[in-house]
Amino acid sequence: MIVILDKSATDEQIENVIKQLEYFGFDVHKSGGDEYIAIGAIGVKPNFDIRKIQLLDGVVTVFRVTDQINLASRKSKKENTLIKVKDVTIGGNEVIVMSGPCSIENEDQIFKIAKIVKAHGAKILRGGAFKPRTSPYSFQGLGEEGLKYIRAAGDEFDLPVVTEVLEIKHLELVNKYADIFQVGSRNMQNFPLLRELGKTNKPVLLKRGFSATIEEWLMSAEYILSGGNENVILCERGIRTFETSTRNTFDLSAIPVVHQKSHLPVIADPSHAIGLRDKIIPMARAAIAADADGLLIEVHHDPTNALSDGPQALLPEQFSELMLQIKQIAEVIGRRIGESSVEKIL
Amino acid sequence: MIVILDKSATDEQIENVIKQLEYFGFDVHKSGGDEYIAIGAIGVKPNFDIRKIQLLDGVVTVFRVTDQINLASRKSKKENTLIKVKDVTIGGNEVIVMSGPCSIENEDQIFKIAKIVKAHGAKILRGGAFKPRTSPYSFQGLGEEGLKYIRAAGDEFDLPVVTEVLEIKHLELVNKYADIFQVGSRNMQNFPLLRELGKTNKPVLLKRGFSATIEEWLMSAEYILSGGNENVILCERGIRTFETSTRNTFDLSAIPVVHQKSHLPVIADPSHAIGLRDKIIPMARAAIAADADGLLIEVHHDPTNALSDGPQALLPEQFSELMLQIKQIAEVIGRRIGESSVEKIL
Amino acid sequence: MIVILDKSATDEQIENVIKQLEYFGFDVHKSGGDEYIAIGAIGVKPNFDIRKIQLLDGVVTVFRVTDQINLASRKSKKENTLIKVKDVTIGGNEVIVMSGPCSIENEDQIFKIAKIVKAHGAKILRGGAFKPRTSPYSFQGLGEEGLKYIRAAGDEFDLPVVTEVLEIKHLELVNKYADIFQVGSRNMQNFPLLRELGKTNKPVLLKRGFSATIEEWLMSAEYILSGGNENVILCERGIRTFETSTRNTFDLSAIPVVHQKSHLPVIADPSHAIGLRDKIIPMARAAIAADADGLLIEVHHDPTNALSDGPQALLPEQFSELMLQIKQIAEVIGRRIGESSVEKIL
Amino acid sequence: MIVILDKSATDEQIENVIKQLEYFGFDVHKSGGDEYIAIGAIGVKPNFDIRKIQLLDGVVTVFRVTDQINLASRKSKKENTLIKVKDVTIGGNEVIVMSGPCSIENEDQIFKIAKIVKAHGAKILRGGAFKPRTSPYSFQGLGEEGLKYIRAAGDEFDLPVVTEVLEIKHLELVNKYADIFQVGSRNMQNFPLLRELGKTNKPVLLKRGFSATIEEWLMSAEYILSGGNENVILCERGIRTFETSTRNTFDLSAIPVVHQKSHLPVIADPSHAIGLRDKIIPMARAAIAADADGLLIEVHHDPTNALSDGPQALLPEQFSELMLQIKQIAEVIGRRIGESSVEKIL
Repeated sequence: MIVILDKSATDEQIENVIKQLEYFGFDVHKSGGDEYIAIGAIGVKPNFDIRKIQLLDGVVTVFRVTDQINLASRKSKKENTLIKVKDVTIGGNEVIVMSGPCSIENEDQIFKIAKIVKAHGAKILRGGAFKPRTSPYSFQGLGEEGLKYIRAAGDEFDLPVVTEVLEIKHLELVNKYADIFQVGSRNMQNFPLLRELGKTNKPVLLKRGFSATIEEWLMSAEYILSGGNENVILCERGIRTFETSTRNTFDLSAIPVVHQKSHLPVIADPSHAIGLRDKIIPMARAAIAADADGLLIEVHHDPTNALSDGPQALLPEQFSELMLQIKQIAEVIGRRIGESSVEKIL
Repeated sequence: MIVILDKSATDEQIENVIKQLEYFGFDVHKSGGDEYIAIGAIGVKPNFDIRKIQLLDGVVTVFRVTDQINLASRKSKKENTLIKVKDVTIGGNEVIVMSGPCSIENEDQIFKIAKIVKAHGAKILRGGAFKPRTSPYSFQGLGEEGLKYIRAAGDEFDLPVVTEVLEIKHLELVNKYADIFQVGSRNMQNFPLLRELGKTNKPVLLKRGFSATIEEWLMSAEYILSGGNENVILCERGIRTFETSTRNTFDLSAIPVVHQKSHLPVIADPSHAIGLRDKIIPMARAAIAADADGLLIEVHHDPTNALSDGPQALLPEQFSELMLQIKQIAEVIGRRIGESSVEKIL
Repeated sequence: MIVILDKSATDEQIENVIKQLEYFGFDVHKSGGDEYIAIGAIGVKPNFDIRKIQLLDGVVTVFRVTDQINLASRKSKKENTLIKVKDVTIGGNEVIVMSGPCSIENEDQIFKIAKIVKAHGAKILRGGAFKPRTSPYSFQGLGEEGLKYIRAAGDEFDLPVVTEVLEIKHLELVNKYADIFQVGSRNMQNFPLLRELGKTNKPVLLKRGFSATIEEWLMSAEYILSGGNENVILCERGIRTFETSTRNTFDLSAIPVVHQKSHLPVIADPSHAIGLRDKIIPMARAAIAADADGLLIEVHHDPTNALSDGPQALLPEQFSELMLQIKQIAEVIGRRIGESSVEKIL
Repeated sequence: MIVILDKSATDEQIENVIKQLEYFGFDVHKSGGDEYIAIGAIGVKPNFDIRKIQLLDGVVTVFRVTDQINLASRKSKKENTLIKVKDVTIGGNEVIVMSGPCSIENEDQIFKIAKIVKAHGAKILRGGAFKPRTSPYSFQGLGEEGLKYIRAAGDEFDLPVVTEVLEIKHLELVNKYADIFQVGSRNMQNFPLLRELGKTNKPVLLKRGFSATIEEWLMSAEYILSGGNENVILCERGIRTFETSTRNTFDLSAIPVVHQKSHLPVIADPSHAIGLRDKIIPMARAAIAADADGLLIEVHHDPTNALSDGPQALLPEQFSELMLQIKQIAEVIGRRIGESSVEKIL
């Protein structure tokens, strides 16, 4: 921590700042000169509240030097973290597409969609059984019934399954059926839930809160990592700004920023960021061009009758076209997207 | 719901929109003329996803007419909701000050502070036993031990107690000690927790999410109300914007907006909104002038050694001065702040 | 400037950073130890682009120590700046209310409104002759004709006049009629205009850009001050956020922040911040409680027929009530609002 | 315009609303039923202030139906606008790269850089002679001297020139040297300047204000178009949000939104959006994948010594690599980027 005092600070003020710093357990080194007086304070605990010093007389500003992020930081681990889910690896050279409906609605629906997305090269099947809804009067998901259907569909088409865990009490249940736990945007700072997930060793897909800074997002990852679970996948899904023509503002620059600050894989969810089908395709392509490690993308064979978020689901033919495009874009930057493993049957 | 079509929409497009609306169960009334074609759709369910119509060819825009907020709305109940906690009434003419430390640190601390805030006219004692912290390495609160101390201090000084419930599994425990449940900003959209609180009949102080619109905040109140618990107190605590010179941007205009849209009481928390002691006093005065039903305000007799948020706690003498000022401001707008009931002893 | 290097930075990296700093003309002092290496760089020009160092290998972060704000800063001048306009002083103990219509519409209108606002204690008459409008098809103001009317009304009722100057080419013209130049939110970073205003010695009311940080706002003041004009009045008028239930989010905490950082007076404009009449009164009171040096507030005797912004103009009786309330609130914090100098005649 | 009244509105309230609407010149059609009462009002002028009706008793909400944007709207012109500058066409199938330094610094610099960017396929040369700077103490550009250099470099390498016009008084001067006028982010709502540009017939590159909605941006284009100049190129350059790890948040979804709403070409400026060289390349690629009609991108052969924004300039070898990548990405979506027309000479 570095404390800057006004060059006109009195001796008494300087001494008081030093006394306080020592009181809080710091090693103190004073330097400075014509422009300002700087006091370096070594040994600060990661969560020392720097405002305690900021409020002292004579202090102009206080800089935190040591990072609050530890395990999630690129400094603590240089090489990329690879997350293995069955025979799929997230964070490596291959770009992984995770796809499926917003909500699991019935057995037939999830099987139909699983078949479609598999055919076009998706590697993970997504679908919600527990839905967080802004209104108490909205469809809240099928619950365990939905989990059974998606598990069965995943097994049938050889697709690992990612689904949201909404609260601690469902954790055991979701654990029985899912290969990856999804933590939704609204739960990014549900610290008790993050702690529990840290005790498992199953991969966690952690969505960025719609108003979280990248720093806070990594700090939430830190909650999971510090519990012993190293398998965190970050997912950008749009932030809240003043612009209202899209559901959220898709912050794609988070992709290169995360790649620099952290060793964890980071994927992008254009469906929730944009919210309207026709603009999702260009944004999905953009995410791949920005070097995302994967996509989370909603597809529905009959979006008119979808029970949630139909308007943001791609139609099968749109998904097909998108996959063809992003395969080529991935190649341009030296990455690849796995071939579709089922014959075209649609 | 009103659907606007381009005046150049084809007959086929118009018919398709009408067919879709009827498919979704609406009564349809077409009108319009030179400038546009309007189709009124009656009978929409509160959570119909209007994007389903927005995506149809020929449609320019879709307006939702019926409100998504029901029980929390001023339309559903004209008179202000009064919330009684022991002999304190929130939402009536009296402005209620809720005060205490950020975290309960030990028995002595909470007793000392309770005595101070009581002496100056606070009517409710606040203090956290379970703390949501951005970093996993920060002080997380004393837990049940803290709850015991604050309950004892509340009883000693005849102050009802408000404290945060962080997760469902603590609900029963907190219920044993608290008179009002506090739901923090990060939990404003923790829907499972809100549902559980809806099943109790104890007052809930619901903080606005730091990126929640007022609409979403009222929708979260709706979760509690729709469960049968009518005792919701709203609390503005600052929103996240691009301005970084304060911790958050204190959105005081939320006070008159909530008064117009809802019958629920609304209070203000300048401590978290501003984050630095010296600017909290003017903002607390401003909240009273803006007609807030109360304040949630942090006080500490020894903030240097506070375990959390010390820099935003008022000193006892600052709190005393603030109380004198806001009593006079409340009178200007025809409200009052209860007299201090203990002799000055500090 | 302080440059922090990773503790694992190589000697070569450290030397390169030092070489670069010296190249840019800095005096360099290296210190540091177990946690990090700090290099203090003395002699930086206020506008050195710190990203030049931030991009060097081994560098973790760079802190700018010396402030970019100079003449506007409280450090450069401890006592409050008092701005005198005829017999009115802005920035002193008296809180100054500036009031009038949004646009000057005709001679009769501005005389009627001037009489009303004077009667209730306003000290400055406001009104726009050149209007910046988002749409090219909106009413753009009366131009010089309007300036003549407001000047005449100001003279008749002994009220100094503030009016907006929209572009450099109008400067001379507006100068002939106005006592205070107003710079609108959209022009806060119109640097050529600010430079020209810096060459006059007439007071400038500088509105905060609706997306400007307080730092940038003070920097724009610096443009005017550095030209030699010391008479800058700052005006908070709401910032743009995700909340849409008010026109803007009124950032009242800017008042105490500016009081701390700068010696310049700061007033508040609740009319533009909120945009709807019924919520302006509580926000105007809040601004006074937050210690604003004045208010800029729109009043219209016939807002239904106003040519611009009628819905945010107070009715005369509302203005009257507001003035009574804020006089009392000002007294609570040891300030005063001048008595009305005309008998009640409305 | 559609006015919604509460279903419990009294007859008197309804009549009053109708009377007011007729007063303002509307044709009125009442409909409605069980859920609400709707009054359609036909004949509204594009800038009628709907708050005038919103404030009336009984009114729940008011929807504006007719668009405020006219000439810039896709509705007014279905086919894309093609803008021709010498032998370059913007808005057609070819993606146009505009490149050069942030500021023109001297003759040698602009010639060197022009040669580099031409060699790699840029079609337009950019460079600033008048610089809008947040601080009055920063480098403000070379002025006319700079214009001469960039003109000469453009002529030498057969590159049309785009440069910023900062104020009306420079318009004639800039017109002598530039092929495209650039309007910077801070001037997006400098309406007098836009009006003047509307009187020319030279292309205008209109940057989005860093806090402007897409709607406002198109409205600013409307100012230019309504003056008779049809040659407007829109340029997304990042918006201001709470995220601080990049200079701005690059709102790439503006690209498909503009393509839908308007017939004008839209390009992207990742340099200003991101602000740090190493993250600009992925974002530039993303812009192409999102279907931008072009890029505005800063390149410098010696960014360490650049007089402005050096840290966000690409090095020549980075620019070369980027051009190779985006040529391939453009092909994936059926577009092309022109071949480099000079032999590799660097």
